[in-house]
Amino acid sequence: MTDYIYLDSAASTPVADEVIAEMLPYMKQQYGNPSSLHRFGRETTRAIQLARKRVAEMIGASPREITFTSGGTEADNLALKGAAMHVRSRAPEKNRVITSSIEHDAVIEPCKDLEGMGFAVTYMPVTSEGLVRQSDLKNALSKDVALVSIMYANNEIGTIQPIKELAEIGHQAGALFHSDAVQAAGKVPINVKDLGVDMMSMSSHKINGPKGVGALYIRAGLELTPIIHGGGQESELRSGTENVPGIVGFGKACELASKRIGQYQAYVSGLRDYLIETVSKEIPHSRLNGSRTDRIPNNSHFTFFGVNGEDLIIKLDENGVAASTGSACSVKKQKPSHVLKAMGFSYEEITGSLRLSLGMQNTKEEIDRTVGVLSIVVKELRELSPFKSKYA
Amino acid sequence: MTDYIYLDSAASTPVADEVIAEMLPYMKQQYGNPSSLHRFGRETTRAIQLARKRVAEMIGASPREITFTSGGTEADNLALKGAAMHVRSRAPEKNRVITSSIEHDAVIEPCKDLEGMGFAVTYMPVTSEGLVRQSDLKNALSKDVALVSIMYANNEIGTIQPIKELAEIGHQAGALFHSDAVQAAGKVPINVKDLGVDMMSMSSHKINGPKGVGALYIRAGLELTPIIHGGGQESELRSGTENVPGIVGFGKACELASKRIGQYQAYVSGLRDYLIETVSKEIPHSRLNGSRTDRIPNNSHFTFFGVNGEDLIIKLDENGVAASTGSACSVKKQKPSHVLKAMGFSYEEITGSLRLSLGMQNTKEEIDRTVGVLSIVVKELRELSPFKSKYA
Repeated sequence: MTDYIYLDSAASTPVADEVIAEMLPYMKQQYGNPSSLHRFGRETTRAIQLARKRVAEMIGASPREITFTSGGTEADNLALKGAAMHVRSRAPEKNRVITSSIEHDAVIEPCKDLEGMGFAVTYMPVTSEGLVRQSDLKNALSKDVALVSIMYANNEIGTIQPIKELAEIGHQAGALFHSDAVQAAGKVPINVKDLGVDMMSMSSHKINGPKGVGALYIRAGLELTPIIHGGGQESELRSGTENVPGIVGFGKACELASKRIGQYQAYVSGLRDYLIETVSKEIPHSRLNGSRTDRIPNNSHFTFFGVNGEDLIIKLDENGVAASTGSACSVKKQKPSHVLKAMGFSYEEITGSLRLSLGMQNTKEEIDRTVGVLSIVVKELRELSPFKSKYA
Repeated sequence: MTDYIYLDSAASTPVADEVIAEMLPYMKQQYGNPSSLHRFGRETTRAIQLARKRVAEMIGASPREITFTSGGTEADNLALKGAAMHVRSRAPEKNRVITSSIEHDAVIEPCKDLEGMGFAVTYMPVTSEGLVRQSDLKNALSKDVALVSIMYANNEIGTIQPIKELAEIGHQAGALFHSDAVQAAGKVPINVKDLGVDMMSMSSHKINGPKGVGALYIRAGLELTPIIHGGGQESELRSGTENVPGIVGFGKACELASKRIGQYQAYVSGLRDYLIETVSKEIPHSRLNGSRTDRIPNNSHFTFFGVNGEDLIIKLDENGVAASTGSACSVKKQKPSHVLKAMGFSYEEITGSLRLSLGMQNTKEEIDRTVGVLSIVVKELRELSPFKSKYA
């Protein structure tokens, strides 16, 4: 697949060579169970401590505030259910959760689970650019709210929310504040203390670390009800033998991300801007979705009018370009994006949508080739479209 | 650590070279998200299908009956909570769970969680060899039982339960039957259809696969309530981007385990028997715990009277032998083993206990060296013991 162009870094990323190199010894030689008292156990315990420190440093946290999970989804589940259940167990009147209508399914679905447990959930609207309004959060809050959960950056359209301001508003009303930062952590500088969030979810495989590992930042002093019970690993918060190689790899990926973050932002957002510019110049009846300014560096999201996004992905794939309509996690569900719906998009606007998400491995030459392919493919598909006369 | 002798394979095992070789391409080249529609996504989807087939074949299941999880602990949590909650949602009178008093914490703790949700849990006693009596299960059952969960083989003392008979008894009373087979799957031939279990938990890192991955066998047609919600992966049963390299590695480990199972049983149980024999010959006031016959091939568990097991582990470690007192997962909790307590052991019998668990990599020469070290170390520790006169 040498010539294949991968523009789906928001879905997953290649594991960096340095990351693999640090993981391998923990598969072949240092295979001890961290709970074991002997030296094999101690070596892996030390490795986890170093990884915890590296993850913490990336977001300005203290190592003891990092709980490793099996990924971003489990981190979101632990944050949402763990915090809501714990708060309500102490203060039964606090039985409401506020979130936005554009969260990832990893937040939306735990919210639905909480509804099944008797919690009320408020799904806040967003602007046409996908921004949560601070005034909406103020209006939605009352004393019965246990938790507010707003994502840092949206996985489809890349819009960055004003987390610091939203967290402050939440805290003023006595609610905890969680942010799903799976798409943002390691890509934009984040300091949890400055943001003031109580919990923040992260994922390894979005930043050139291995799949199957993530973490939840939990502010020191905050207690959660665990969702996976057993041997009491991760300070009783997440039981199960630690995924040592995965955790080591995630730690290394965070260290690399911290080091390169300036370079990443400059290079990837430069490439992204070039892509947006070229698409808008070369392809008529196309439109960038989301915010032009409050946007993570690696995301571009377009509507190509008169085209079906899934046909577009298949055609792009045939022509050597990997793209996505939006969330990889829900594309197989074949339902229109709840994110674009919440932004007020029409059926046609949703149908024609395409996400091109970038990484450090992409080049300007790849962008030129992609836009070349895209021009031809969009034209071809429009020829076949019932809206042909409108856009051809 | 060339000369170091690893006798803690029940806690974790080295990842086989063939397993690592199959995993690596899914980190560096095939890094797509299985939910993506493009070829990177399709390649990883295919890889998961193959792994699912390999895991299924190891236990005589069909691939669609395998749900991948982040490990044995999560599989146990999904089985216990997922089944109990689902059954009760359909039949509110079914609000009791039966388990044994010697289960792993990954079963005991979810049971406690279920107690918090209003379920009653019956913890059955065991014999002095750690066997669940069929008559006890018969007596404990009634129409209010949603689920029976009995481990296949105990993690401390290695005793194998009569799962087929117990499952039949459970089914006769209209209860579902789950077995935690984390210590057994891949080490003794298991056919879930022959056993008649409804669910069975497995772990990768106990059979030379990577950490951070496991699976739950769920009999076709059986519905569970998920515990991790999100993008709907694993047929809506376990959300979160699939740990592709981990799943691929687990699949390969199962294939290897299936192929070598005869050789494994013969070699490892031969070595284990030699160890038991030599210990009983060389070390006075020692005793094998658990069943002599109904025992997984790789487990030996002794009491050395007049010695503290943790001191023993530290001394063995200093002398190049990795051992365990019992469950790696609970050793740091510093509480006496609930397994040995349930078997009716006295405080002294519990305190002096040591688990030596074997793998294919161990040799007869290592056993000789271990028993040599053990003889000296036990003698030294008895010299320091308040019971010196009794055993020295």
